[in-house]
Amino acid sequence: MLFKDGDRIIFAGDSVTDTGRENALGDGDYGLGNGYVRLVNTFLTAYYPEYRYDLVNMGVSGNNSRQLLERWDRDITALDPDVVFCMIGINDIWRQFDAPAKPYKHILPDEYEANLDQMAQKSKNVRDFIFLSPFFMEANKEDAMRKMCDEYAAIMRRVAKKNNRPFVDIQAEFDKFLQHRSGIGLSWDRVHPFYIGAMIIARAILREIGFDRPLF
Amino acid sequence: MLFKDGDRIIFAGDSVTDTGRENALGDGDYGLGNGYVRLVNTFLTAYYPEYRYDLVNMGVSGNNSRQLLERWDRDITALDPDVVFCMIGINDIWRQFDAPAKPYKHILPDEYEANLDQMAQKSKNVRDFIFLSPFFMEANKEDAMRKMCDEYAAIMRRVAKKNNRPFVDIQAEFDKFLQHRSGIGLSWDRVHPFYIGAMIIARAILREIGFDRPLF
Amino acid sequence: MLFKDGDRIIFAGDSVTDTGRENALGDGDYGLGNGYVRLVNTFLTAYYPEYRYDLVNMGVSGNNSRQLLERWDRDITALDPDVVFCMIGINDIWRQFDAPAKPYKHILPDEYEANLDQMAQKSKNVRDFIFLSPFFMEANKEDAMRKMCDEYAAIMRRVAKKNNRPFVDIQAEFDKFLQHRSGIGLSWDRVHPFYIGAMIIARAILREIGFDRPLF
Amino acid sequence: MLFKDGDRIIFAGDSVTDTGRENALGDGDYGLGNGYVRLVNTFLTAYYPEYRYDLVNMGVSGNNSRQLLERWDRDITALDPDVVFCMIGINDIWRQFDAPAKPYKHILPDEYEANLDQMAQKSKNVRDFIFLSPFFMEANKEDAMRKMCDEYAAIMRRVAKKNNRPFVDIQAEFDKFLQHRSGIGLSWDRVHPFYIGAMIIARAILREIGFDRPLF
Amino acid sequence: MLFKDGDRIIFAGDSVTDTGRENALGDGDYGLGNGYVRLVNTFLTAYYPEYRYDLVNMGVSGNNSRQLLERWDRDITALDPDVVFCMIGINDIWRQFDAPAKPYKHILPDEYEANLDQMAQKSKNVRDFIFLSPFFMEANKEDAMRKMCDEYAAIMRRVAKKNNRPFVDIQAEFDKFLQHRSGIGLSWDRVHPFYIGAMIIARAILREIGFDRPLF
Amino acid sequence: MLFKDGDRIIFAGDSVTDTGRENALGDGDYGLGNGYVRLVNTFLTAYYPEYRYDLVNMGVSGNNSRQLLERWDRDITALDPDVVFCMIGINDIWRQFDAPAKPYKHILPDEYEANLDQMAQKSKNVRDFIFLSPFFMEANKEDAMRKMCDEYAAIMRRVAKKNNRPFVDIQAEFDKFLQHRSGIGLSWDRVHPFYIGAMIIARAILREIGFDRPLF
Amino acid sequence: MLFKDGDRIIFAGDSVTDTGRENALGDGDYGLGNGYVRLVNTFLTAYYPEYRYDLVNMGVSGNNSRQLLERWDRDITALDPDVVFCMIGINDIWRQFDAPAKPYKHILPDEYEANLDQMAQKSKNVRDFIFLSPFFMEANKEDAMRKMCDEYAAIMRRVAKKNNRPFVDIQAEFDKFLQHRSGIGLSWDRVHPFYIGAMIIARAILREIGFDRPLF
Amino acid sequence: MLFKDGDRIIFAGDSVTDTGRENALGDGDYGLGNGYVRLVNTFLTAYYPEYRYDLVNMGVSGNNSRQLLERWDRDITALDPDVVFCMIGINDIWRQFDAPAKPYKHILPDEYEANLDQMAQKSKNVRDFIFLSPFFMEANKEDAMRKMCDEYAAIMRRVAKKNNRPFVDIQAEFDKFLQHRSGIGLSWDRVHPFYIGAMIIARAILREIGFDRPLF
Repeated sequence: MLFKDGDRIIFAGDSVTDTGRENALGDGDYGLGNGYVRLVNTFLTAYYPEYRYDLVNMGVSGNNSRQLLERWDRDITALDPDVVFCMIGINDIWRQFDAPAKPYKHILPDEYEANLDQMAQKSKNVRDFIFLSPFFMEANKEDAMRKMCDEYAAIMRRVAKKNNRPFVDIQAEFDKFLQHRSGIGLSWDRVHPFYIGAMIIARAILREIGFDRPLF
Repeated sequence: MLFKDGDRIIFAGDSVTDTGRENALGDGDYGLGNGYVRLVNTFLTAYYPEYRYDLVNMGVSGNNSRQLLERWDRDITALDPDVVFCMIGINDIWRQFDAPAKPYKHILPDEYEANLDQMAQKSKNVRDFIFLSPFFMEANKEDAMRKMCDEYAAIMRRVAKKNNRPFVDIQAEFDKFLQHRSGIGLSWDRVHPFYIGAMIIARAILREIGFDRPLF
Repeated sequence: MLFKDGDRIIFAGDSVTDTGRENALGDGDYGLGNGYVRLVNTFLTAYYPEYRYDLVNMGVSGNNSRQLLERWDRDITALDPDVVFCMIGINDIWRQFDAPAKPYKHILPDEYEANLDQMAQKSKNVRDFIFLSPFFMEANKEDAMRKMCDEYAAIMRRVAKKNNRPFVDIQAEFDKFLQHRSGIGLSWDRVHPFYIGAMIIARAILREIGFDRPLF
Repeated sequence: MLFKDGDRIIFAGDSVTDTGRENALGDGDYGLGNGYVRLVNTFLTAYYPEYRYDLVNMGVSGNNSRQLLERWDRDITALDPDVVFCMIGINDIWRQFDAPAKPYKHILPDEYEANLDQMAQKSKNVRDFIFLSPFFMEANKEDAMRKMCDEYAAIMRRVAKKNNRPFVDIQAEFDKFLQHRSGIGLSWDRVHPFYIGAMIIARAILREIGFDRPLF
Repeated sequence: MLFKDGDRIIFAGDSVTDTGRENALGDGDYGLGNGYVRLVNTFLTAYYPEYRYDLVNMGVSGNNSRQLLERWDRDITALDPDVVFCMIGINDIWRQFDAPAKPYKHILPDEYEANLDQMAQKSKNVRDFIFLSPFFMEANKEDAMRKMCDEYAAIMRRVAKKNNRPFVDIQAEFDKFLQHRSGIGLSWDRVHPFYIGAMIIARAILREIGFDRPLF
Repeated sequence: MLFKDGDRIIFAGDSVTDTGRENALGDGDYGLGNGYVRLVNTFLTAYYPEYRYDLVNMGVSGNNSRQLLERWDRDITALDPDVVFCMIGINDIWRQFDAPAKPYKHILPDEYEANLDQMAQKSKNVRDFIFLSPFFMEANKEDAMRKMCDEYAAIMRRVAKKNNRPFVDIQAEFDKFLQHRSGIGLSWDRVHPFYIGAMIIARAILREIGFDRPLF
Repeated sequence: MLFKDGDRIIFAGDSVTDTGRENALGDGDYGLGNGYVRLVNTFLTAYYPEYRYDLVNMGVSGNNSRQLLERWDRDITALDPDVVFCMIGINDIWRQFDAPAKPYKHILPDEYEANLDQMAQKSKNVRDFIFLSPFFMEANKEDAMRKMCDEYAAIMRRVAKKNNRPFVDIQAEFDKFLQHRSGIGLSWDRVHPFYIGAMIIARAILREIGFDRPLF
Repeated sequence: MLFKDGDRIIFAGDSVTDTGRENALGDGDYGLGNGYVRLVNTFLTAYYPEYRYDLVNMGVSGNNSRQLLERWDRDITALDPDVVFCMIGINDIWRQFDAPAKPYKHILPDEYEANLDQMAQKSKNVRDFIFLSPFFMEANKEDAMRKMCDEYAAIMRRVAKKNNRPFVDIQAEFDKFLQHRSGIGLSWDRVHPFYIGAMIIARAILREIGFDRPLF
């Protein structure tokens, strides 16, 4: 499996990662939040109880790629991680839709690409760096925000490739689910997943890292 | 799989089941709480999105088997379930340890057996009825409360057998985990599991019901 | 104009109407909430200060058409209104999407039609009775929930016609707006409008009732 | 219309402008409060959905003209606005009535005039700068506070003229309303308007800026 | 002095009397509120420490004369008072101004007169019954609400006379104060007095009952 | 009267003066608290409405004379008062009784005298400076804390004389009241007066400053 | 020792007994509060861990002897206690001091005696019934409330004797402590003890019941 | 006895000592918390009322020995104590069990020994310095966390000996209790004692310091 015993694994991101990480309680793990990071940790601890993986949630609600880049040295590099997951971009997009009159809150594709690239550059010494695509829980690919989200995900895929880092297509995971079931109920705003969406993201991460134990 | 499309599945129990079911939000499912019931629902929805399973959390914090029996007709039978899971007994035991001077709060083995039996009798028309053992997250089998808990679990197993109903040994699941990792961090009081314990219980239930989809 | 001096005008509905009606403060009007009812009242008072229109908000959050019908006599008829607006149905639909496994929370088209018809029948003596269509703030007409919402709106239109009562197509109002601007920002869940959606609804109502004063 | 696509429009003022701007939610517009600024934004977005107007609420509760002037560079100029609305003065007046023994809280006419003039001078490069008169929701022009308010409004009108900037007489708008309807209910203290007063102010602003779309 | 040692003295009224009577603390007197009743009690206890006067605050916020009459038997007569003060009517008036479209909330002069008269009739066995005029803290006698308030006060005076009970003109007390000082600061809404208004009312009551001790 | 129109009058002290001065509302006077300072202001405004007295509450809960002295320049002198009232000392005493093992919280007589003297020296340019004695609402002069309080009051009287400043014996005022009525009910802890005690202190201050208007 | 293994021991009383019994947490004992009952339980459990004493706190804040008598059957007799402690009377007394004008809140000596006697009569079948004197934490025996408290304690002693039940003189315990240390700090109001007073009461109870284990 | 009149006695530690020391109320002693420190103070004050012992609670929740050492100069030495009690180490241990993947939160035996030794070295001038063993309220000596706790206690004993300071074996006190009674109910997490555990610790301290007064 990708993770080694004793690894420090950081999840960088926005509110989809953060999920109230200040408030989570229990399991002897500090500040993991209530979302996909928590669920990944739960799987790893329940299925690999003999290993020690130090998962650290570094999501900050509201962050766009510019803000994440600004805190990268302090919040990511300084912690000297073995593995970094980076899921960012939905706020770069969202503000273009919910605050169209405030362009200073919009991160356009070029800057997004540059920001991601800098994150990857700053992380050259990180053993494993995995990009997780931004996603929008809307099945209709013609929806304007979904479309833009796909465009940003494509940018992330390109940056990942350029830097020889893996890219996990979370949007594709949701699309599979949405073939069978309405997205209503997955989320209020199609951006923040509830429990089932957290499971969908966690599953994709577990597969990517080579989770290799049977469910039972 | 045990569950059929459209089944109503009730989880009867105490605070281990309840887990704040009033407060849970999201996924379009009402009152599932934040514990193993929620996790079972999350697995089922994420992996069987094309089916409809109506999970209902009927745990009540603080309940012992006497109190659960008292509300059985109103809270379980009246909802006409297809499947019932029943996990009860830890409060029957716990009060003998934390309130030794209050015998009216203790449910002794004979009454426990009779209470369980009545629940099973009242549920003859329920298609599937599964007992889930009470458990104590303590590896030392000589610990007094663990010992008593094992005794009560044995009673439950006997009642299950007598009524030809399956019995899932949740304690055994925790014991396997505890071979590899300390129980400290699983719980504050060794009674109420955090996330990882919820996963351990959910996994046992999923296996019991014949969950048959691959993790990836 | 449709309203006469001294009229009592009731708005029957769900949370889209309710909008926290317990908490609203000011303007000497009690319990109007913070949504479209409040805005209609604000327009009427600011533009027709010499008339007295007694607007009453009778929305109840979470109501479907079955629940609204149950309280119709007590909450609507008993107040002896001159005019009734009735906007209901989104919860009839929504639960089919966010709680698909709980069919007892779904109001299917036949019952919806019957419920609306009974409301109209019970209101024969009300001078003016106006149906306001349910709506979903999603531009894509192929979206599953939008589609069902259009189907329910068509039912309402049919019931209105059968009872010789006007029908206001609120969905059409939103569609016009959505031609120019994304719906993101209009609402979190595409069901509950913020300020701008309240304006869109209020405008449709004002036009329907023949608001006849110039803006300046 | 006065506003151009992409304009940044700042509303400078006191609590009449502020209206809890920290707390407002929705419509993808941040910190607009619940008063006239919000309503202007609602009108503009609902009626001109194809344009982008960046409205910014810079009211601070309790401010008099001295305090607004002190923060002018930081809060107004630094944001480089295209349009500024400035409604200030009621606290300059009010403290003379409710804290007569605290003269250091009173801003007398000469200072008020100087303060306004400095604001206008500092805003020479702002394309459009509009003064909005302070007002007191009292019909009786002989009322002492109304009288002083009229005096301060006259000063503002003079400063506006001297600087070749428009002046909107909000007091006159309220006076028209008060011919038909008591001011009781418009406000508790005749200073802070509820919904209807917000509509009256917003209407005056919309007319001033040449709002040119039909209501329906 | 009017009060005898051991008298029970009830203050019947609305929010002007109530003043949060549930919450008041201290002085060993229960539920006196923070307004004029409290101040009367403070004067009596400080200046006549050797006597025992049982003051009871029976104000209920929001009450009009109809509502006070409805609870008269239960709240006033049943307590068998020696003295009753009755200050009521401002809500009878106020709703005509702040809720003009809700006539069922308006108590018109004829009903007001009848209500007061019934209160007096029901209190024939009360040794002392004193009417306290409603008042509006507005100096301008041409103000519409002030005018109506004067009309209602005149009705109260007439009812008092008919029943041979004293009438205290509280409005006249405020008018004297308003000759010297603005009413702004006395109250936010001109209905609910702060500390100084409480002093003005208390002083009028003390004079009426023949307070006969020197201030020093 | 001692106060002149326009005077600034500061009340320096501890919690007996402070009385929650942050929270008080109304009467257009800011931060007067709910105790004797408020009541003095209420009397002055109600009886001398034509004059302007700027009362400022500078009590700080918990202060002893050492702490008051430390903030004297900043809180008293810097405000350039015309009149200062100084009531301090009860915490100097109280800690000797309720925290006998913490001598660093005790202010002994010599330091108390020096502290008071310094306050008087620092206030040479203040037109009127009045000492108000500390007091303990206990009639029994042999009570240990009462005794010590009398000793400290005697020190204050001596300092007042030495500096040619008046001294008001508040303890004597309470003693008069306690001849007629139990102190129970005046206060919970015999240190913090409720309403009646505030009246007793206010009365003494009013007499000292030559209040010269009739009560009616 | 007086208590036998398995005894149910009830503490009947007012707020001195109650001490927030709803809120106490821990030690597996439900609703013991934070006062002397808790401390007695702590001693018994720590020193006699092999026995089971079921202590039940039945204090109700604010109760006087009339109110305690009214609930005696329901709250005491119905629980079938082996031992009852009864400490009541301070509110019978206190209201005479802090609410002198409200005689219906005063329980005079004759009624107090009758109430106590009825409690004793109703408890004839209780194996052990112990009266605990009311007390006032004031050393001065000439203090009016102390004096009355001594009078009521003497009545209790008489009732105890008449019914052949023991009487514990709690006041005497406090008097011993007060010889060495001021009562200030024991309590704010001399009625409700803090920790040290709880220890003083608990010690007297332990001695009375024949606590017979060494401290170490 | 070990303590002399006027001694300052500091309790250094973690949450077992802290016990909410900010919030404690009463007894004129500031910040003692609700645990064993409070109980030691209560015993000392109730039994030695003529002496003055200044107990100071310097526990900080969550502290391990590294953190306590970091604040030693500021929090302990700077207060110039006569006596210091030092109970630390459970968090050094606990994190190894509940956060096994976060080794930077683990204090291993060597560092623990060095930290304790430095505390002792820094306290050479303190007249009496007493180590109190960390403890785990678990009777089973084979339990992993209990075992490690015994190991750390042995280290503390060794450091105490090396520095010629007494060592109190608190674990042994709990072991005695646990022979007779289950530890369930003593604590939720076996780390933080409730009332009875506080008594057990306080008793050991009192014995160590030579408490020499009879219980009665």
